[in-house]
Amino acid sequence: MLHGLMMQMPLAISSLIRHADRHHGDAEIVSRRVEGDIHRYNYRDLHRRARQMANALKGLDVKLSDRIATLAWNGYRHMELYFAVSGSGAVLHTINPRLHAEQIAWIANHAEDSYLFFDLTFLPIIEAIAGHCRTIKGYVAMVDRAKMPAQSKVPNLICYEDLIDSHSDRYDWPEFDENLASSMCYTSGTTGSPKGVLYSHRSTILHTYAAALPDALNLSARDVILPVVPMFHVNAWGLPYVAPMVGAKIVMPGPNLDGKSLYELFEAEKVTCSAGVPTVWQGLLAHVEANNLRFSTMKRTVIGGSACPPAMLRTFEEKYGVQVLHAWGMTEMSPLGTACTLKEKHMHMSPEQRYPTQYKQGRVIYGVDMRIVGDDGGDLPWDGKAFGDLLVRGPWVLRQYYKGEGGDPLVKDAEGRTWFPTGDVSTIDPDGYMQITDRSKDVIKSGGEWISSIDIENIAMSHPAVAMAACIAAKHPKWDERPLLVVVRKPNAELTREQLLAHFEGKVAKWQIPDDVAFVESIPLGATGKMLKAKLREQFKDYKLPTA
Amino acid sequence: MLHGLMMQMPLAISSLIRHADRHHGDAEIVSRRVEGDIHRYNYRDLHRRARQMANALKGLDVKLSDRIATLAWNGYRHMELYFAVSGSGAVLHTINPRLHAEQIAWIANHAEDSYLFFDLTFLPIIEAIAGHCRTIKGYVAMVDRAKMPAQSKVPNLICYEDLIDSHSDRYDWPEFDENLASSMCYTSGTTGSPKGVLYSHRSTILHTYAAALPDALNLSARDVILPVVPMFHVNAWGLPYVAPMVGAKIVMPGPNLDGKSLYELFEAEKVTCSAGVPTVWQGLLAHVEANNLRFSTMKRTVIGGSACPPAMLRTFEEKYGVQVLHAWGMTEMSPLGTACTLKEKHMHMSPEQRYPTQYKQGRVIYGVDMRIVGDDGGDLPWDGKAFGDLLVRGPWVLRQYYKGEGGDPLVKDAEGRTWFPTGDVSTIDPDGYMQITDRSKDVIKSGGEWISSIDIENIAMSHPAVAMAACIAAKHPKWDERPLLVVVRKPNAELTREQLLAHFEGKVAKWQIPDDVAFVESIPLGATGKMLKAKLREQFKDYKLPTA
Repeated sequence: MLHGLMMQMPLAISSLIRHADRHHGDAEIVSRRVEGDIHRYNYRDLHRRARQMANALKGLDVKLSDRIATLAWNGYRHMELYFAVSGSGAVLHTINPRLHAEQIAWIANHAEDSYLFFDLTFLPIIEAIAGHCRTIKGYVAMVDRAKMPAQSKVPNLICYEDLIDSHSDRYDWPEFDENLASSMCYTSGTTGSPKGVLYSHRSTILHTYAAALPDALNLSARDVILPVVPMFHVNAWGLPYVAPMVGAKIVMPGPNLDGKSLYELFEAEKVTCSAGVPTVWQGLLAHVEANNLRFSTMKRTVIGGSACPPAMLRTFEEKYGVQVLHAWGMTEMSPLGTACTLKEKHMHMSPEQRYPTQYKQGRVIYGVDMRIVGDDGGDLPWDGKAFGDLLVRGPWVLRQYYKGEGGDPLVKDAEGRTWFPTGDVSTIDPDGYMQITDRSKDVIKSGGEWISSIDIENIAMSHPAVAMAACIAAKHPKWDERPLLVVVRKPNAELTREQLLAHFEGKVAKWQIPDDVAFVESIPLGATGKMLKAKLREQFKDYKLPTA
Repeated sequence: MLHGLMMQMPLAISSLIRHADRHHGDAEIVSRRVEGDIHRYNYRDLHRRARQMANALKGLDVKLSDRIATLAWNGYRHMELYFAVSGSGAVLHTINPRLHAEQIAWIANHAEDSYLFFDLTFLPIIEAIAGHCRTIKGYVAMVDRAKMPAQSKVPNLICYEDLIDSHSDRYDWPEFDENLASSMCYTSGTTGSPKGVLYSHRSTILHTYAAALPDALNLSARDVILPVVPMFHVNAWGLPYVAPMVGAKIVMPGPNLDGKSLYELFEAEKVTCSAGVPTVWQGLLAHVEANNLRFSTMKRTVIGGSACPPAMLRTFEEKYGVQVLHAWGMTEMSPLGTACTLKEKHMHMSPEQRYPTQYKQGRVIYGVDMRIVGDDGGDLPWDGKAFGDLLVRGPWVLRQYYKGEGGDPLVKDAEGRTWFPTGDVSTIDPDGYMQITDRSKDVIKSGGEWISSIDIENIAMSHPAVAMAACIAAKHPKWDERPLLVVVRKPNAELTREQLLAHFEGKVAKWQIPDDVAFVESIPLGATGKMLKAKLREQFKDYKLPTA
């Protein structure tokens, strides 16, 4: 066997910041700080302070593969940690501060974090968990000495700027196996305990190349990027890595994610592209519409997390000239899997002709592959209609959770290739555009045919008397499962089972119409406002359908 | 040490064509064939025939790492071989048919090629070399059975389409170590024997990601790519890999590279971008200007190989709205090193303000790093003025030539990092834009200061009486070397040494003005029209300067 004779250079996160310093040294990082003011410096400064922090970590006796946790907003200090921690061989563990303090403590103990860095906003969380975190040796407040809390119950409270100031910037990034763990993120997991996803330097660099491509986020040295998506949420979709790779200016919004604060930052810093979940853009659009404003530099925004409402996509494009890019992924995918960029054939279409494609989650970025399969694990046709379990694979897709939690998550195809089941149900059209139609556990499997619970719920919700609707599977002796519609009526509205079922006629195939309607006072909701269908299924597990 | 827990998937060239088939199956590959007609099919067809060819190679007893040579134009069959050969684990060895038959035989023997695939255009070459190639077991003519030469002296002459037709398309691309050699290319080498550069699957895939980036060639599924740069010349700058990665339509010009043929293909196939050397664009522009034509779909063209004349860049941009992208690289770099894409700061400049940047070879694409060093190996400032030897490194940069020819080509820096000396001399400006100023062996080293031979020649050439000028180093007892200008006068022109030297005043620093002028009848030229300065230096090795 003949090996290629190219240089053997392990892929390394430290090379990103080295590159940005050397080739884009004066490109800016602008941050709105927790303190309220605007902080600005450049990649040269970021690299210098990351090297100082790497020395500080050594001073704290942080060793190879030690986990270093953060509870922080999007800001320059958080970005310094992205490079100082991973670059020096430790594992950056970003924790979602929106979780309950108990969950945060559980995660920190499970990850066995050795230090925790936090923005002052989260001091109350730190005070609540400090007594319960068994492995954390110190808590680093990401502020100047002057802003340090005068007194605090937190043991071994360290000031971030003291750490920086007391260390040299002479530091050579070490070279190591590119499969070394670089960072980790826990899945929120609607069922069971959160599970850790462990990224490597290799998976991160490959993901960063892919994310920057014209068919993905399309980022260059001509862009000014404002990531609204938090750095504690799957590495802000990779943007803190993409920006130094391409030498883009990056603008960090800190804790102020309301429409007004974002709009002001967009305009003041000449932002060209942004990324976040639909609710953020709702707030932004509301502010812009109410004040009759325009975007002077914004060209496009990446929307993920959940589907972008078609009306929002059209408003952005038609009224504001801002292109919406639908993207889809998950914590287990680093996170990018698909992006809804168009193909050459769409270039000659009218907006009305191409919108239906743009509403989809998009096509895979090279590196990731996907399939949809039925109950028997066999491939379903890519006709944009058949829907099945969505499976993915690729060098930035998880093969195992941290500490092997949950066992082997992968499945094999007939050729022996391993795939990760996403837990989503989707269609794929002939051009490769994927659209999520449901969650796997929510779909109703009726006699070998699948019924999308979301489709049924959307139709139910379109009835003027319905306040909330959940469609779940009820047991059926002949069809295994049949759809049961659980409905909360609007106050004072009258609505019978027959009236609601009649509302479905002509909107779906006859066999997809629910077998029954159960009217209830309320449907249980989770912390983020999502319906807890698992609870509903438990509640209705002995429900006898009239058709059974 | 903790490893990341992402899927372990070796980077593989076969995954590119698998991806294009699955996700861009109906994107077209259009080829002008040697036979003269236009052939069109899509990635699904290309993948099917590449699998058939992979089975055919197995049938020919081609084993892992066997070298398979090609002598072929840009066309769909050549592209099939790119995937069939590398994808099945053999090494694709593209040979430049413009070399002398003797050199071709020497290269095939050195590489120990086992089969040679060729376009019929090159049958005379095959007939000339067949008796001299010791390891080649068969010669495959890339044509239909009907077009096979009726009689030929070539031993074991095989028909390409027979091979395809007689094999099944059932083939699973094997998985192997990503460092496996995938392809090779010999450097033309102005001195000494050609040396083989051996690429790997890993280096190729990383290069392909980098080449597609918005700051490099900026290619997407919305592009129609026409590579004029030949597939026998460093893999057509990577375009046969980039196109399937991004799902772009690709248009192959075959042997007809004249302005008229290219223009017709550009228009008929709605080409959006192209790539080639300046001489090709001269021909194209001449045709377009002479016939008062316009480009209806062309958006940009990549120019490399040698510097694009500023006037050509301006004509393309100002008259035809075609953006010229300067790129630089070499066989030893897969080949891309830099691309001259702009930064955010240039977006607010007038064309006149940004042109000087666009005339440069550009800034590195992430993955490659570069330095300029002086005689002592120390870094020179990035001020756009200081020039020194250009060194590069990166995962798609050579570490050794095939069979170790020429010894260890790398040098080490103070931190122990290895670098490849490009043999070019260049400046780098504060924004990281590199500009080639000379070849290392041609620069004149005068008392520790370097003088660019090209700068001196350009000034000499701007004198109306000068037909050709070469600036070489002559020995000097005090300064080691001083510039000697060797000049061919235009027919019937009169020009004295003093007149020509006076022409330099005010154009360069006094100490850079040549010490003497030698008028000659002719300057020796190589096969590609370049001045052979090594021969001139030999000729003038005992020249006594008047200043010595």
